[in-house]
Amino acid sequence: MIKARVTVTLKNGVLDPQGKAIEGALASLGFQGVGHVRQGKVFDIELDDTDRAAAEASLRDMCERLLANTVIENYTIALD
Amino acid sequence: MIKARVTVTLKNGVLDPQGKAIEGALASLGFQGVGHVRQGKVFDIELDDTDRAAAEASLRDMCERLLANTVIENYTIALD
Repeated sequence: MIKARVTVTLKNGVLDPQGKAIEGALASLGFQGVGHVRQGKVFDIELDDTDRAAAEASLRDMCERLLANTVIENYTIALD
Repeated sequence: MIKARVTVTLKNGVLDPQGKAIEGALASLGFQGVGHVRQGKVFDIELDDTDRAAAEASLRDMCERLLANTVIENYTIALD
């Protein structure tokens, strides 16, 4: 079994209102010196595959088709 | 400036309906051999700090107070 972590983040230049809200919340909690905050998603996925190359290809396909909106999001895949 | 990535994931044993929905969606898209899927959040945070130890302490405080619900979530902090 292969464990993978897929991280999906917004591309540069794409507005991130949730990140902005967190910036504001951190400031109002008294945290100083906080610059930009961007929020993304992470998926921990278990695969029955034993072939790491096949697993990575399969994960890439999952990202393109379901997990990420590649118009506005980047994704990275890390195998355990 | 320090860039940090905070990853927040659900603790083991906490139900993750969103992860379950993704499992179902992947299966219905024809992906086979997909085991458990768990979804989490990632925050990319820029700090004006130059002291890495102080930055990490500050990030830990942000996690405890805002970014993570430590009753049901774990967090990890990675400095760039």
